[in-house]
Amino acid sequence: MCSVGDDFWKSSGRLADGREIIYFDESPGLGRASVPDRRPLTEVPAVTAPPGGPGQDLASAGLRWDALAGEWVIIAAQRQDRTFLPPPTECPLDPSGPGRLTEIPAPGYDVVVFENRFPSLRGLPPAAPGGSVAADAPAGAGPPETGGVPGRPPTGRCEVVCFTADHQASFASLPPRRVRTVLEAWADRTSVLGATPGIKQVYCFENRGEEIGVTLHHPHGQIYGFPFVTPRTASMLGQVKAHAAAGRGNLFDVMVAGEEAAGTRVISRNEHWIAFVPAAARWPYEVLLFPLRRVPSIPALGEAARAAFCDIYPELLRRFDALFGMPLPYIAAWHQAPAGDEFACREFALHLQVFSIRRAPGKLKYLAGTESGMGVWINDITPEEAAHELREAR
Amino acid sequence: MCSVGDDFWKSSGRLADGREIIYFDESPGLGRASVPDRRPLTEVPAVTAPPGGPGQDLASAGLRWDALAGEWVIIAAQRQDRTFLPPPTECPLDPSGPGRLTEIPAPGYDVVVFENRFPSLRGLPPAAPGGSVAADAPAGAGPPETGGVPGRPPTGRCEVVCFTADHQASFASLPPRRVRTVLEAWADRTSVLGATPGIKQVYCFENRGEEIGVTLHHPHGQIYGFPFVTPRTASMLGQVKAHAAAGRGNLFDVMVAGEEAAGTRVISRNEHWIAFVPAAARWPYEVLLFPLRRVPSIPALGEAARAAFCDIYPELLRRFDALFGMPLPYIAAWHQAPAGDEFACREFALHLQVFSIRRAPGKLKYLAGTESGMGVWINDITPEEAAHELREAR
Repeated sequence: MCSVGDDFWKSSGRLADGREIIYFDESPGLGRASVPDRRPLTEVPAVTAPPGGPGQDLASAGLRWDALAGEWVIIAAQRQDRTFLPPPTECPLDPSGPGRLTEIPAPGYDVVVFENRFPSLRGLPPAAPGGSVAADAPAGAGPPETGGVPGRPPTGRCEVVCFTADHQASFASLPPRRVRTVLEAWADRTSVLGATPGIKQVYCFENRGEEIGVTLHHPHGQIYGFPFVTPRTASMLGQVKAHAAAGRGNLFDVMVAGEEAAGTRVISRNEHWIAFVPAAARWPYEVLLFPLRRVPSIPALGEAARAAFCDIYPELLRRFDALFGMPLPYIAAWHQAPAGDEFACREFALHLQVFSIRRAPGKLKYLAGTESGMGVWINDITPEEAAHELREAR
Repeated sequence: MCSVGDDFWKSSGRLADGREIIYFDESPGLGRASVPDRRPLTEVPAVTAPPGGPGQDLASAGLRWDALAGEWVIIAAQRQDRTFLPPPTECPLDPSGPGRLTEIPAPGYDVVVFENRFPSLRGLPPAAPGGSVAADAPAGAGPPETGGVPGRPPTGRCEVVCFTADHQASFASLPPRRVRTVLEAWADRTSVLGATPGIKQVYCFENRGEEIGVTLHHPHGQIYGFPFVTPRTASMLGQVKAHAAAGRGNLFDVMVAGEEAAGTRVISRNEHWIAFVPAAARWPYEVLLFPLRRVPSIPALGEAARAAFCDIYPELLRRFDALFGMPLPYIAAWHQAPAGDEFACREFALHLQVFSIRRAPGKLKYLAGTESGMGVWINDITPEEAAHELREAR
């Protein structure tokens, strides 16, 4: 399978155990997807779960309904033995080479996406007649395996995105052309997974740094296809709805306009994007990057906004690294509208949230009693001071 | 000031900078509260904030309204330089001794509570006519300091509770008599702070272990008097309300009964308490300790339940330490009904949540992209396996 984008070439194949792999090439005719995976992997058994039923062993993997919080929790005990900080010579995200077979069979790649070998979500429920799938919140008690607590199979999708074949690189060091290819991969996966029955929300993100638990150093991100709308997105949508219902306009628009007007927390901007520390930042260094023209998701970004992203985002990440003169651990999270939600499609504002848990060279921000117990965040740095430092850091 | 409990003696005084200190003694007539604090500390200026107004410098401290989440965030930049892992000989939580003045002027103590020197919440708004104070959710834009974003002064209370004068001890090692005195201190503070205008919720908790950011090793906990209902409590109350409205009874009762019936996740129990791993646990090792007779708060616990707590809780903590044969970092969080909330007072169930971020001897659970970005928890250990291990650990 091969398709051609504006300036990239997409082709897909299968790994030895049946997982999908998708190459996003910056030049045509490389034939990477046709390089076979020669590893002796066992085929991953298909998940065949009837909508709403258990259908598989919930003992080690499953979604559990947290009734006190009204949220799904993912149990993924089968991942406990996943690859953990391998030496550089055994990096599974490098391209394959002579005598060394990795997750990527091709001898090179630009950007590549493949299904995670240790997924916490996997398989999709067959669509019920009419295309609907199991409801978000369960009614009544669930299967006996979970002691009367509603549960369901951990359906969904977990993908890995490698940003470059260069093991030593970082997102901040990618040239604009490569950032664009990554952006196109995110857009493609958002469209494809968002149109998949059973997937309610597509989430593209990057974890960077051992300090936040990254187990592989190779520059990469992840893409989740959740079978439910996430708590964070549901809460944002609730706030946006209430704001609109009160006749006060679109909450995102009001917020971005307010930050632009105040200026004290703005880090950088160009013709299409603005980056600022939110007034009620939770993390020591937290930045929101909004397109100036509101769109609900990455695929809805226009050509000019896509091009303008490729400069402003790596530049923002370089400010993060310049802050303390060391690679800053960070999480970069794309907030997008849930798939197929009409209100969200009209009113949600795509944005990228980038934040670090480092609050000083020798100090991390921990989520302790107030945050983890009560959901109350305490931030030790004022958003205005954080913005000032990030503006100065180059 | 001195008052006498069933089996403890309470007396209070002031530290050199005006902060309150309260001794809970296990024998009478010790006169600890009358020992003066001889340190040359500068008096803490009073917070005089009119309800809803800024009234103090919001540049370095304040509550900021996170409109996208619908939650308050505490900005506490003045704490950034708080005491950080001092050597044992400089522990500020030891009693004072010859040539060494600490936070506790007395030469010894059993349990002592005092206002935190580096509080993130401080001072209380004067009650408005009729006793009401600033509303939870702000309407319209706030003061200009926050760039048009609603904010208010960080009123409330932050207290430290020292569990023992023995620097080397831990909560798990306390004798039942001492656990009882700590419980009485929690009950006292919950009653006193809960009756204070401007405080909406009292939260007693303990952070233990450098791995979760503890900056002082001396066995101690904290008590917060929040000027709002916390997100976690608000969400639990919402779920309890919805469950009752659906005619399905009290959600806490259903949950505890379900866990008792299933049995697979129960760790321990006695006549008055039950400890289990919740079916949808978020943390590798997470235990909920419920009194079998539902009460909304610590002060509402009966005599028998108080006595029974003093055995089952330290025993639970000893299981945590036995798990990997090393002191386990943990957070212990008391969930109580908000003050003066009639529905909560009738329907909320007091419980103690104890959880660790350690998932294996060399591995911690990190809150990365899915948890911190989207609020979706992934747990690598099944609740049933965690319960099994905790049952075996002694």
